[in-house]
Amino acid sequence: MSEVYAVRRGLLRDRCAAVGSAAALVSRPANVHYLAGGAPPGAVLLLGPDEDVLLCPRPPTGDLAEGRTDERLRVDRLSVTGGDPVVAAADLAASHGAESLAVEEHDLTVARHRAMGAVAPKLRLADLGVTVEQLRIVKDEEEIGCLRIAAEITDQALGELLESILVGRTERHLALELERRLVDHGADGPAFATSVATGPNSGRGRHRPSDRRVEEGDFLSVRLGANYRGYRCEIGRTFVIGTAPADWQIELYDLVFAAQRAGREALVPGAAYRDVDRAARQLLDSAGHSEGLTPRTGHGVGLEIDEDPQLAPDAMGKLDACVPVTVEPGVHLPGRGGVRIDDTLVVRPEADGGPELLTITTKELLAL
Amino acid sequence: MSEVYAVRRGLLRDRCAAVGSAAALVSRPANVHYLAGGAPPGAVLLLGPDEDVLLCPRPPTGDLAEGRTDERLRVDRLSVTGGDPVVAAADLAASHGAESLAVEEHDLTVARHRAMGAVAPKLRLADLGVTVEQLRIVKDEEEIGCLRIAAEITDQALGELLESILVGRTERHLALELERRLVDHGADGPAFATSVATGPNSGRGRHRPSDRRVEEGDFLSVRLGANYRGYRCEIGRTFVIGTAPADWQIELYDLVFAAQRAGREALVPGAAYRDVDRAARQLLDSAGHSEGLTPRTGHGVGLEIDEDPQLAPDAMGKLDACVPVTVEPGVHLPGRGGVRIDDTLVVRPEADGGPELLTITTKELLAL
Repeated sequence: MSEVYAVRRGLLRDRCAAVGSAAALVSRPANVHYLAGGAPPGAVLLLGPDEDVLLCPRPPTGDLAEGRTDERLRVDRLSVTGGDPVVAAADLAASHGAESLAVEEHDLTVARHRAMGAVAPKLRLADLGVTVEQLRIVKDEEEIGCLRIAAEITDQALGELLESILVGRTERHLALELERRLVDHGADGPAFATSVATGPNSGRGRHRPSDRRVEEGDFLSVRLGANYRGYRCEIGRTFVIGTAPADWQIELYDLVFAAQRAGREALVPGAAYRDVDRAARQLLDSAGHSEGLTPRTGHGVGLEIDEDPQLAPDAMGKLDACVPVTVEPGVHLPGRGGVRIDDTLVVRPEADGGPELLTITTKELLAL
Repeated sequence: MSEVYAVRRGLLRDRCAAVGSAAALVSRPANVHYLAGGAPPGAVLLLGPDEDVLLCPRPPTGDLAEGRTDERLRVDRLSVTGGDPVVAAADLAASHGAESLAVEEHDLTVARHRAMGAVAPKLRLADLGVTVEQLRIVKDEEEIGCLRIAAEITDQALGELLESILVGRTERHLALELERRLVDHGADGPAFATSVATGPNSGRGRHRPSDRRVEEGDFLSVRLGANYRGYRCEIGRTFVIGTAPADWQIELYDLVFAAQRAGREALVPGAAYRDVDRAARQLLDSAGHSEGLTPRTGHGVGLEIDEDPQLAPDAMGKLDACVPVTVEPGVHLPGRGGVRIDDTLVVRPEADGGPELLTITTKELLAL
């Protein structure tokens, strides 16, 4: 169980050695979590040359302090640094004879990078780039298990909301209630800020819940997800409030539903990211909704809610099996509202039954 | 009303000119908010040479898109960049003839800094340092007004919780309920993750709420705050559950209360940061609690929940009037729990009545 982290660090060590660095410093929190089984606030991970050390700016509290994460946090040593742990790491690496240290230049600020150079002027600072992010794209079955539980929790929270009375309640309150229900069902927290959008706001991807109240005849779109042991999933659904959807609502819903299904069906190992995007996008495009489409129709999920791959027109690369992604096309008509349908799925070979749908709440157009 | 932002940008422009840069790029979100009246996700602010431009990676949504923040967001121009807005800003500054551009090296990553250099190789990138953070330390009365409302909301949320039944409920649920009540009373959201700590967890500054349930005889410590129009305050209180606190609980409470009062009373214009810290700290030290004390006993608040000044033993500087700070000493006894008392106050001259207490919930030891 704890060996999985040592294996991951071994893979990273191999990649570093291949580019001539015997030591690496990982500072991006999700990357630290991936390699060490946990990431106390501000902690960074120094790999090699002699040992793997988790450096923390202050003593960890909670589970970690009480040893309750022994199973999950496995490094050779934990060091409390007081000051900035990246500076302490540069000092430590230099004092152990490292000549070069690969760092995450996309995460480290210029000021911290400079402070590392000042404390260890002979240490050459190389760029680790997005090596760890690349390792994270394909998930193992334990990670997928966490995502599956996150999705179950999310479906439960959403299902309960649908049974309650919605008319007259504000977007803000509905969003808070969804977040409370996520935690009730065992989430460590929401995976991201829950979005509830009603009427003219509906169908917007990242609408911030307002004080607008749900009215008869509204579209209601929600987007939420649970964080379970660090793993984050996402679901988005659009409903109609009242007994009879208007014709334009049914038409728009059917269109987005068809686009989302096309995107889901394009999820096969070996498919180009841009082809998955196009599968979902072209239906909306040809229906005249190319204006105002989001720049991508899906993305990877895992320890962050927004990871590679990006399912977008200019994305480079192909899907592998065991990559969890969202498929989330939507259309928003200014002043009227819109529809967004969003699932989290895992890419699987055809022989294994094709893409595994994690978020199973119905995608029929429900009138609530 | 909107001129306040132009005045702030004028001050920053003067400081830049003084160090030889006709243009500056502000990327830290709270700094962008301070200078532009709002900060859409990922937006950066380019000051000069000819105009002040807010560069956004994608079209802003919500209030901003619908022009509802006209009163609050005032720049010369808003530009949607598609790619990374700091790169677009470097390009724009160079094309307008700027020779040097001051950037926030403590915010920009090495990778973004390099990308700016690549797009505008003749542009000299200087360091703006924490110039904007320094401008932010002393607040104007409008900012203090926002903090005052944030504190009122926080007091209301906490007051309601105290009227409800606590025994048997989990830390996690109490924290969620507090956050819901903050929003009920008009907060834009919690100012930071609400902490609820019971029994052996109590008294820890940043305890993450767990599934532990409140029990008779527990200390219960809470730490919460509202975000109102971007301004964030903080309150911390410790209660005892049941009818009769134990002697050790009363003794510890009285000690922390005295330390917190000493800290509050030390808040006068001209007082050294470290002297305020010492006023609170020395009572705890001399009672034998120097082990495990937090490294600081307070800090500034404003657009971020943790700003300068730092009230700590090695902090350099002196308090000005109109600086809002927290005073929050605490003691945690491993295995038993502890006490933390935390207020947000504004430094005011003696002639104006001394420090203005924003968070007014009682600090008597309540038995709930």
